Amino acid sequence: MEEKENVIEEIKELLNNRKYHELKDILDNIEPADVAIVFEEFPDKSLPILFRILSKEHAAEVFVELDSDMQELLISGFSDYELKEVLEELYLDDTVDIIEEMPANVVKRILRHSAQDVRESINEILKYPKYSAGSMMTIELVDLKKDMTVEDAFMRIRRTGVDKETIYTCYVTDENRILLGLVSVKDLLLAEQNEIIGDIMEQNIIYVNTLDDQEYAAQTFEKYDLLALPVVDKENRLVGIITVDDAIDVLQEEATEDIEKMVAITPTDKPYMKTGVIETFKKRIPWLLLLMILSTLTSGIISMFEESLSVCVVLTAFIPLLMGTGGNSGGQSSATIIRSMSLGDVEMSDILKVIWKEIRVAFICGIVLAVANFAKMMILDSANIVANGYSPALIAAVVSLSLLVTVVFAKLIGCVLPMLAKKIGFDPAVMASPLITTIVDAISLMVFFNIAVMILKI
Amino acid sequence: MEEKENVIEEIKELLNNRKYHELKDILDNIEPADVAIVFEEFPDKSLPILFRILSKEHAAEVFVELDSDMQELLISGFSDYELKEVLEELYLDDTVDIIEEMPANVVKRILRHSAQDVRESINEILKYPKYSAGSMMTIELVDLKKDMTVEDAFMRIRRTGVDKETIYTCYVTDENRILLGLVSVKDLLLAEQNEIIGDIMEQNIIYVNTLDDQEYAAQTFEKYDLLALPVVDKENRLVGIITVDDAIDVLQEEATEDIEKMVAITPTDKPYMKTGVIETFKKRIPWLLLLMILSTLTSGIISMFEESLSVCVVLTAFIPLLMGTGGNSGGQSSATIIRSMSLGDVEMSDILKVIWKEIRVAFICGIVLAVANFAKMMILDSANIVANGYSPALIAAVVSLSLLVTVVFAKLIGCVLPMLAKKIGFDPAVMASPLITTIVDAISLMVFFNIAVMILKI
Repeated sequence: MEEKENVIEEIKELLNNRKYHELKDILDNIEPADVAIVFEEFPDKSLPILFRILSKEHAAEVFVELDSDMQELLISGFSDYELKEVLEELYLDDTVDIIEEMPANVVKRILRHSAQDVRESINEILKYPKYSAGSMMTIELVDLKKDMTVEDAFMRIRRTGVDKETIYTCYVTDENRILLGLVSVKDLLLAEQNEIIGDIMEQNIIYVNTLDDQEYAAQTFEKYDLLALPVVDKENRLVGIITVDDAIDVLQEEATEDIEKMVAITPTDKPYMKTGVIETFKKRIPWLLLLMILSTLTSGIISMFEESLSVCVVLTAFIPLLMGTGGNSGGQSSATIIRSMSLGDVEMSDILKVIWKEIRVAFICGIVLAVANFAKMMILDSANIVANGYSPALIAAVVSLSLLVTVVFAKLIGCVLPMLAKKIGFDPAVMASPLITTIVDAISLMVFFNIAVMILKI
Repeated sequence: MEEKENVIEEIKELLNNRKYHELKDILDNIEPADVAIVFEEFPDKSLPILFRILSKEHAAEVFVELDSDMQELLISGFSDYELKEVLEELYLDDTVDIIEEMPANVVKRILRHSAQDVRESINEILKYPKYSAGSMMTIELVDLKKDMTVEDAFMRIRRTGVDKETIYTCYVTDENRILLGLVSVKDLLLAEQNEIIGDIMEQNIIYVNTLDDQEYAAQTFEKYDLLALPVVDKENRLVGIITVDDAIDVLQEEATEDIEKMVAITPTDKPYMKTGVIETFKKRIPWLLLLMILSTLTSGIISMFEESLSVCVVLTAFIPLLMGTGGNSGGQSSATIIRSMSLGDVEMSDILKVIWKEIRVAFICGIVLAVANFAKMMILDSANIVANGYSPALIAAVVSLSLLVTVVFAKLIGCVLPMLAKKIGFDPAVMASPLITTIVDAISLMVFFNIAVMILKI
């Protein structure tokens, strides 16, 4: 942290004194991701100067790390020549990522200044739906033929590998680009020079289809500990590869998305600090409104029992306790199930096992909570209850019994709803805490008032 | 899915008919991670047979993927010779992961049957605290010297690389094992055979310390798109490397942990389906109890205003609406801030910017919700309110005004508490939805009753 402040101070001073050579030395020795962080501290007008100071290759790496607003700003200031120079240094999948965030006129300009073959490849990848494996792949890979020797393979890697994002897994294809096998550079290094690729290649290949979901592709990396994953089309032709750094980004995005849905926010790709007030508002208000309207249900239930409540006002004091504990119990179950489904630990076929487990956990939790609550009410609330003309033990029994029933209902709903949502094709994360809490609120009130009416005969 | 069922059926049949050769052919062609999934479908007694069918190298890879209960079961059935054979094939970091989950007597047996140097290395890694970078590293790496040529480097990789988990980044150290630089196999392949390592190595090295948190190490992979990360001790001596597959696991574990804390569950390393009922209960009950006791506060507040409430029972119906909307608003803010801090998008120094942004978002949300609620109450609830002898507009105004104030408080608390928690060294995720909801519940009631008493003069 402090180091970062010092570096920024130093850069500011060098920039003000136009000591560009020293500035270049400093910036070229900072990792691209960190240069991007440093750039954020400077006003927009300094950006083009700072960027032009960077050495050519470093500049392209930094460009990829900048956020899309800064990228757009820089592109609009680039001469055609400069734009071309940066584009030439970029990996194809990074270019596609950048294009996806740019307005149409900038996209056109980028495509116009890309080499013909690059332009065709970009258009190829842009064809795939957002969030598909095809949209996150790069087509830059090292491909080999079955009858090559290890020596041939190394020659090919040396000749073509400079521009490829990863060379450590090479893919063996036939004349129709059908994927036949793969061979890692480690295998190549440990093999004899005259061995034939077809003999040493791994034919058990893990791959995804272009239209597979990006989350599925990312989870495949996690499951099989991969560095790269081939992407094939419907005819099993190799069209590209996904690299592990992009898989990590997708896994992180998906976890963030789950969390956002779990607290009733419409997911966004943008980091918090980059999202405007109005945009943040728009992501949050629909769910708040919907949930508020749903809570009309609970108001209705309370109104229904208004007479009983006015007879025994002391019951009102325990509504928040019941609703709160119910909501928390249901929230625990739903979040656990949602995350377990995301990680692939729980599948639809497990539903009966899940329900049976949650019921048992709920009973134990419910009994402990009921006993604790009974004791607490007898100690802390009995004076107030007596003052209202009721027996403390009776009121405590009503509340504790309601608590037990509520917890069981809450945990059951908390585990069943996300799984049902998935069954009918919705995202389970939508069935998270806030929605479940609202449903559990209504149920807990019905349970509470009915038990109260029965036992207290009000 | 269906394919999995078929394979399992086939294996069961071959196993029953003791056709072990065919079984071996099938199993050896399945990825280790998938073999582990298949094994889960078989009873414990079949496991040793199935495992012994696997070819030696494949067996070790499968062993790593099994869950710790199955590993323990297999180890207890292994002869000393078999145990030794499996251990010889394992990467060191995997052995350490296995040991960390085993009971003491099994650990002793594993250590006794490991080679002397492996045993020393294991003990070395076990010394580092759980969740530290040191505990997740492997000491198996390719190290080079500055004055080697590229040709020498390849010879060294070929000679020592077979047993190393990753060979794609080689580390250059001096005679005291101080880390001087690194060189990727890609660089080596693209360099001339007679170039000197010291001339082509990258000296700008990203590394972590043995005692750094594992989450920090994993985030470093994400930030810089690494395949491996060197780990150094206090004297800057290279002691090991972390590989990207382990970094992915840590990132996923940390996201799960955040989610669990956010819904008031004590985090666990075990997948849901592997956690017993009692264990699940133990992870959930402490928070449920604590939050229930905290909600005594809200009960107390309601009791304080019992007289006013008995004068105007109709107000009771709007308690769930206020508490629910407040809880949801606060939950949105806290989850957003907690996740943003985990991802490094929000830092402590941003606190004023965050507060200012949340206040503005809260005001817009609050006004929209208040207006919507006013309209809803005038349409749906006015009959009931009139029946209770109050003016609908007056009651609607009380509720809507309370709603606005509550939402602003909720969002403010939702963003401030996680940041303050971090400031004083707690995990921000603990300040998530349930705790914030409980605090917001109390505040919303105080706001509501005070506004009601003021406006309605009850």
